[in-house]
Amino acid sequence: MIDVPTLVEQARAGRPRAVARLISLVENAAPQLREAMAALAPYTGQAYTVGLTGSPGVGKSTSTSALVSAYRRLGKRVGVLAVDPSSPFSGGALLGDRVRMQDHATDPDVFIRSMATRGHLGGLSWAAPQALRVLDAAGCEVILVETVGVGQSEVEVAAQADTTVVLMAPGMGDGIQAAKAGILEIGDVFVVNKADRDGADATARELSHMLGLGEARQPGDWRPPIVKTVAARGEGVDEVVEALEKHRAWLEEGGELAARRRRRAAQEIEAIALAQLRARIGDLHGDRHLDSLADQVAGGRLDPYGAADRLVAGLTDR
Amino acid sequence: MIDVPTLVEQARAGRPRAVARLISLVENAAPQLREAMAALAPYTGQAYTVGLTGSPGVGKSTSTSALVSAYRRLGKRVGVLAVDPSSPFSGGALLGDRVRMQDHATDPDVFIRSMATRGHLGGLSWAAPQALRVLDAAGCEVILVETVGVGQSEVEVAAQADTTVVLMAPGMGDGIQAAKAGILEIGDVFVVNKADRDGADATARELSHMLGLGEARQPGDWRPPIVKTVAARGEGVDEVVEALEKHRAWLEEGGELAARRRRRAAQEIEAIALAQLRARIGDLHGDRHLDSLADQVAGGRLDPYGAADRLVAGLTDR
Repeated sequence: MIDVPTLVEQARAGRPRAVARLISLVENAAPQLREAMAALAPYTGQAYTVGLTGSPGVGKSTSTSALVSAYRRLGKRVGVLAVDPSSPFSGGALLGDRVRMQDHATDPDVFIRSMATRGHLGGLSWAAPQALRVLDAAGCEVILVETVGVGQSEVEVAAQADTTVVLMAPGMGDGIQAAKAGILEIGDVFVVNKADRDGADATARELSHMLGLGEARQPGDWRPPIVKTVAARGEGVDEVVEALEKHRAWLEEGGELAARRRRRAAQEIEAIALAQLRARIGDLHGDRHLDSLADQVAGGRLDPYGAADRLVAGLTDR
Repeated sequence: MIDVPTLVEQARAGRPRAVARLISLVENAAPQLREAMAALAPYTGQAYTVGLTGSPGVGKSTSTSALVSAYRRLGKRVGVLAVDPSSPFSGGALLGDRVRMQDHATDPDVFIRSMATRGHLGGLSWAAPQALRVLDAAGCEVILVETVGVGQSEVEVAAQADTTVVLMAPGMGDGIQAAKAGILEIGDVFVVNKADRDGADATARELSHMLGLGEARQPGDWRPPIVKTVAARGEGVDEVVEALEKHRAWLEEGGELAARRRRRAAQEIEAIALAQLRARIGDLHGDRHLDSLADQVAGGRLDPYGAADRLVAGLTDR
């Protein structure tokens, strides 16, 4: 028996176990999810969300951990959602569930959670915003969404944040890969990590060139900064935070923050609506109405469009 | 200006140009498609459809062409729908649009058409049944659906026929590939083509073993036959036709034919209904109702499920 109002109350008080259980509701698409989302709604819309994406090996986890430390030094409560499409759903572990996050395992103002896609197409883009809402309501002022993979859906999740950070590392041919994956377009801030390695400057120059940073821009346009870091030693991380805060200020001044959030909410509503309609249609298997329509179409007494019209008309009366 | 009633009348009279234009409506998802499908419906449900699938190189086109010849010798009007997911939509060419079909290019009782998936996920499973309906209404007594690719959607299209033929060739490790692709389950008739090559008997034995043909079956169950052919020389093709006719008789006797067609129609209706609903949701982009819902969700005044409910409720009133 899940007592949603109590869970929400405890999550708002910063109780990790309650936060974990609410995110589990999201991951399991539990029947109580609707009630939970309705109860959480009034406490959402406060958190600043940052998506981090990049190829394997660029140091995403290390960078995320370093950013957590930097934001903690600023006194912010921080949430981390690590999205891993390859691993089976990790379940349960809220604190210290990833080795590199061990630094923050005992910090009551850091919430860390791994999520997997569970093989659902579009499942991630549906579940991630809801998990963010839980962390938001739990009082996280900054939420870092780290995508472990490099697939299209991970890029989409990273792009759903208020600010998207694209990470690269020297000598990985990342620029070309990034261009291919379409992640140059989604980057608000670029980070060349492992900048103590050979080729860091070349990578930054290549990136600058590909982004057309030398070209003239309209006044008021955002010019994505390129920050060099050695995340494992914490070098350059404060500069990343500075770049993030600048981007956030830019988003707020121009009204772009509200516009992005409205766009994301619209996408989320659409995805849920479509899933609901698909489920209703799925429920009709073996239904007498669909059987009868199918009979008529198979026998040439009705065309499939006419049948689909009648099916749709019947859907919302249920 | 497309005059649908005239097109349908001409297609029923066996005019290739009219058949071609109707199938183009299907491929382009033209606005007149609904009207065309409604006008065609009364003349459908007569054709016997045969799906042909198998790995590249097993001789699908050659086998299809040989089957066309065999059915023509029986005096049947034959339609061929060649489904090619890799090629861009070929457009227009109705007769002789494929080299190996040149034999039938001047036969007024053979209709041949290539179709491509146009990159739409599920587009093929939607378009193929409608194209079949055009050929059906044009008086084709047998329609061969040849899938050129080996992807999941091609297998699904082949499986949508009344009878599904799975083609193999010796020495291609086809058995294992077929098992992986899940096409053993969908085969009603198996053909080992290029049977003049080494290993044809071994392939047939392996197949027989994988299909469990040696095991006892329930009386009335269909036991998929394995036919060896050399399609390029027409050898064994009459035996394939014989196997097809046996399967057709089995389908009709047991009521399975009607059941399969009803199931296919139900799937088609569902796919169209879902596409209609998705389009309606897509139309809402920039719509004031969705904008307002998104605003409320982004601001925490409404949860996404509640918003989706209102969106769905508004959908069918339009």
